[in-house]
Amino acid sequence: MTSFRFDPPDPQYDARVRASFARQAAMATIGASLEAVEPGRVVIALPFSPQLTQQHGFLHAGMVATALDSACGYAGSTLMPADAGVLTVEFKINLLAPAAGLRFRMEGQVLKPGRTITVAEGRAWAVGADGGDKLVATMTATLMAVTGRPDVRH
Amino acid sequence: MTSFRFDPPDPQYDARVRASFARQAAMATIGASLEAVEPGRVVIALPFSPQLTQQHGFLHAGMVATALDSACGYAGSTLMPADAGVLTVEFKINLLAPAAGLRFRMEGQVLKPGRTITVAEGRAWAVGADGGDKLVATMTATLMAVTGRPDVRH
Amino acid sequence: MTSFRFDPPDPQYDARVRASFARQAAMATIGASLEAVEPGRVVIALPFSPQLTQQHGFLHAGMVATALDSACGYAGSTLMPADAGVLTVEFKINLLAPAAGLRFRMEGQVLKPGRTITVAEGRAWAVGADGGDKLVATMTATLMAVTGRPDVRH
Amino acid sequence: MTSFRFDPPDPQYDARVRASFARQAAMATIGASLEAVEPGRVVIALPFSPQLTQQHGFLHAGMVATALDSACGYAGSTLMPADAGVLTVEFKINLLAPAAGLRFRMEGQVLKPGRTITVAEGRAWAVGADGGDKLVATMTATLMAVTGRPDVRH
Repeated sequence: MTSFRFDPPDPQYDARVRASFARQAAMATIGASLEAVEPGRVVIALPFSPQLTQQHGFLHAGMVATALDSACGYAGSTLMPADAGVLTVEFKINLLAPAAGLRFRMEGQVLKPGRTITVAEGRAWAVGADGGDKLVATMTATLMAVTGRPDVRH
Repeated sequence: MTSFRFDPPDPQYDARVRASFARQAAMATIGASLEAVEPGRVVIALPFSPQLTQQHGFLHAGMVATALDSACGYAGSTLMPADAGVLTVEFKINLLAPAAGLRFRMEGQVLKPGRTITVAEGRAWAVGADGGDKLVATMTATLMAVTGRPDVRH
Repeated sequence: MTSFRFDPPDPQYDARVRASFARQAAMATIGASLEAVEPGRVVIALPFSPQLTQQHGFLHAGMVATALDSACGYAGSTLMPADAGVLTVEFKINLLAPAAGLRFRMEGQVLKPGRTITVAEGRAWAVGADGGDKLVATMTATLMAVTGRPDVRH
Repeated sequence: MTSFRFDPPDPQYDARVRASFARQAAMATIGASLEAVEPGRVVIALPFSPQLTQQHGFLHAGMVATALDSACGYAGSTLMPADAGVLTVEFKINLLAPAAGLRFRMEGQVLKPGRTITVAEGRAWAVGADGGDKLVATMTATLMAVTGRPDVRH
């Protein structure tokens, strides 16, 4: 298995990521919060809400993707310089099982950091009434570090 | 160019898709509405909302994906039998430009319908103050028709 | 439909792409040749060969991907500056039908060119004994322009 | 981390996968061989060959994809019934680093087996002169089990 240990170039990565997350209105709208911020890894907690469902009453795949995309993006951001903004170039998500659960844990993990391009992997876990975890989705996200663009900062 | 002309096996596809869309609470939450329902093609309208933004004030990539996923899924659903439910197996989205605009048009188009697997393509267009369109995202979605599962119907 | 009209910054794009293609040993190995080189669009021809098949006798999905990746990459390359090399960041391919046919036409088309990131779309068409075309695969590829790296030129 | 332990429904999975692999002419053409066949996991070995390169002398991304696709497909196949054939519905690959090395280890691992749809993950490792491994690509593949189609068996 790959072991992941990364040195963040910006010692203030934690505060920077938390401040940026707080500016993502979409996260507040869906009820998501930051559970962990580590070098190359970010975890987002998302409670189930009937407001976010698709027609069968499960969490909408797009809402799973929304939280996972932020988890992957911020995982990448922890390893970027202080003055870089992060953009999602693309992501791909596989829905492995219906997103049913009391709450969800969305994990983003950097696979390969880079000066321009960073690749991260996301895993969505559903937590049921018994506290057990079930893997419901997996993502691969390609991120780009952007500097010198005032409209894309953090 | 591919030309798309499909015969829907269920003559009630329009009513069935509209009823299912109305049950997707996530669509109401983000303010999305159905703009067009045709055989193999569905268009969803999404006004810009500051509630759905990422940290730079653009529409969050996950929200673009949420509306595009529904557009693709329902495009597939128009070509499925009356008793089939549709599930997203996976999707992939490329963000081509910041999702900035007054409103967005999310188009889902079936590329290849199938008994089990259907592949659809999504395009997200941002509409600006001048009425001009800009392509901001493109999606490929793999859908599965599911029958005989009461928890996954329409 | 999107209309594609691009101005290549390098007037020598045709010769540059053809010279680079000639250096791709993998293309000779699989028997692929350049059929068209236009601004933002490249077509590769690939005859069927029993050497390239999977276990059912169809063209191996990876061989479809190999030719489509080159078509997309060179489509992107036509719109890059003379001193830029092109790298595939990622691609995603949907296999729509078994790749059966006498020969295949692999089309790469730029959707969105960019200074750093270019997104292209690929379509694989199988040509049968009757001359009819069948869409057998679709690709989305993310490309990166690289300059100043002598190991990655053209 | 996810732990993977799967019970193959077909006790003859090893012989079945090896026989099918032997029928993939594309594997012989590129020089690939089976290194390991386990329940839910297949490893393919691929020596570097100048015949498989792109314009910079690295292994062509499509060749990396060819071997990884087979690794993922056969990983899925190990968990399928004896009478099922496996088809690749789609795959997505991220190229993390130039595929430079003496040889490559292509690992396919099932993330989620299913009656119809199976999702697998691929990792391509480059092995250098010093024996050290480098992750050069990662894949997600969606596979379908097909029964009752004589043209798609094993």
